[in-house]
Amino acid sequence: MEWISKSNVLIVGLGLMGGSYAKGLKRLGFRVTALARRRETVDYALEHGIIDAGSDSIDPKLIGEADAVVFALYPGVFKEWIRDNQKYLKPGARLTDVTGVKRCIVYDIQAMLRPDVEFIAAHPMAGREVYGVENSDERIFFNANYIVTPTDKNTPEAIEWCKDLGRILGFRKVSVLSPEEHDEMIGFLSQLTHCIAVSLMTCSDNRHLVDYTGDSFRDLTRIARINDAMWSELFLLNRDDLLKQMDLFISEFGEMRRLLAEGDAEGLREKMRLSTERRAYFNK
Amino acid sequence: MEWISKSNVLIVGLGLMGGSYAKGLKRLGFRVTALARRRETVDYALEHGIIDAGSDSIDPKLIGEADAVVFALYPGVFKEWIRDNQKYLKPGARLTDVTGVKRCIVYDIQAMLRPDVEFIAAHPMAGREVYGVENSDERIFFNANYIVTPTDKNTPEAIEWCKDLGRILGFRKVSVLSPEEHDEMIGFLSQLTHCIAVSLMTCSDNRHLVDYTGDSFRDLTRIARINDAMWSELFLLNRDDLLKQMDLFISEFGEMRRLLAEGDAEGLREKMRLSTERRAYFNK
Repeated sequence: MEWISKSNVLIVGLGLMGGSYAKGLKRLGFRVTALARRRETVDYALEHGIIDAGSDSIDPKLIGEADAVVFALYPGVFKEWIRDNQKYLKPGARLTDVTGVKRCIVYDIQAMLRPDVEFIAAHPMAGREVYGVENSDERIFFNANYIVTPTDKNTPEAIEWCKDLGRILGFRKVSVLSPEEHDEMIGFLSQLTHCIAVSLMTCSDNRHLVDYTGDSFRDLTRIARINDAMWSELFLLNRDDLLKQMDLFISEFGEMRRLLAEGDAEGLREKMRLSTERRAYFNK
Repeated sequence: MEWISKSNVLIVGLGLMGGSYAKGLKRLGFRVTALARRRETVDYALEHGIIDAGSDSIDPKLIGEADAVVFALYPGVFKEWIRDNQKYLKPGARLTDVTGVKRCIVYDIQAMLRPDVEFIAAHPMAGREVYGVENSDERIFFNANYIVTPTDKNTPEAIEWCKDLGRILGFRKVSVLSPEEHDEMIGFLSQLTHCIAVSLMTCSDNRHLVDYTGDSFRDLTRIARINDAMWSELFLLNRDDLLKQMDLFISEFGEMRRLLAEGDAEGLREKMRLSTERRAYFNK
């Protein structure tokens, strides 16, 4: 692990996820620097020993020192950043990210990038319902999945490096998917579930039911507390996949409604047995 | 609490819920007896000190001794039991239940019941994803809600007795609702959520996604492992209320789909903000 003590990692965007990366990387012994939008964020991170150096403006020196850069930005901002600031990157630098959608990001970034640096995309599937560096916590990675989404443009070395990054940060499982596979998977497992949770909260004014609420409803709506700026952007960037998943769900839910309306007990039971059988796999 | 040591409570139906009642009532000092369908259930409960006496057939003596009877049966079986066996009940006995739907049960039972016994309905909103007396556990009540659903036929004394029963079993909150209010509430909070969870599991063969599954998907589908016999019966008995709730959800989910398809970021964000605001109430 010689490379650790020699490496400077720059985090661009110091929110919940960027802050958690910073804490995890500091624990491992890296020199960690950061760029953030707000001065208070940088000050907080410096005061709490989360980073070694940081700036609230584009600092060519910090950028130029970094052997690796982790982008923890909203998708749109990420592309702008590369366009405007890639000139400051150190030759040979490795770039990765934490973005929750991939097709719309990975190819564009790789196409515009200087040939002497490499972008290898990743999605750490971890999070909390709170925001900001103040709430960052590297332990959110320990029971989570980490997906690397390489393209033809990536070298085997960079792919392996990116997988190692996930491993040393403590992720439970590190996998490789194409950007397309990733976006389909995330459309179903994450975006569709968030759409459902939001709809369940907004479909009627249910606040008077708070006294009767049991675990089922709480479980299904925990993720209904949602960062509207980030999630609306992620939904729209993955629109076609998400619409496809929503349509599958609408069709199946409509089928349940039909069975119920027709009083088809055996049809309902069949759905429930299939559901029970499938769900058992997810408890392994 | 003089009445505890003097009281015989009969549990009819010794599954997860009946067994949990038995354990809780034994802990409190009641004499607890039970009727179960299978001999092995009775033997297990006797061997483990869960009940003081029990039978796998209709035992007029056990029934006639009981000051209170708790019915932990499926709804259809419950009505049959009353029709066939109410003649054995002790005059002045108090009956209660654990049934998850109320309108279709409470009025029918009260209409057919002898005038010298009283049925006061209740719904302990507790459960587990496992079944049978072997998995019963009175601690499932400790963080749960307990709803009493009286009608005009109930006396203030029986209502108070039934609320006390919930309190001494350790429920977190004891409330009173009409059978109609109860069924509307349960249609939304419990039955709709189970329909959603089942549909999410059955809408596509998603087993290959198990490696990428995060907390959101697991949370939304935990209740997709479902007792198909019981839940299909509960759904059908509350069909009109559940259909109404499903339609509200379908309409709202369709609205989310429309906003996404039209690329209406601000519309999506508005839904997410409302959802976030409402969900905050449920964390109190």
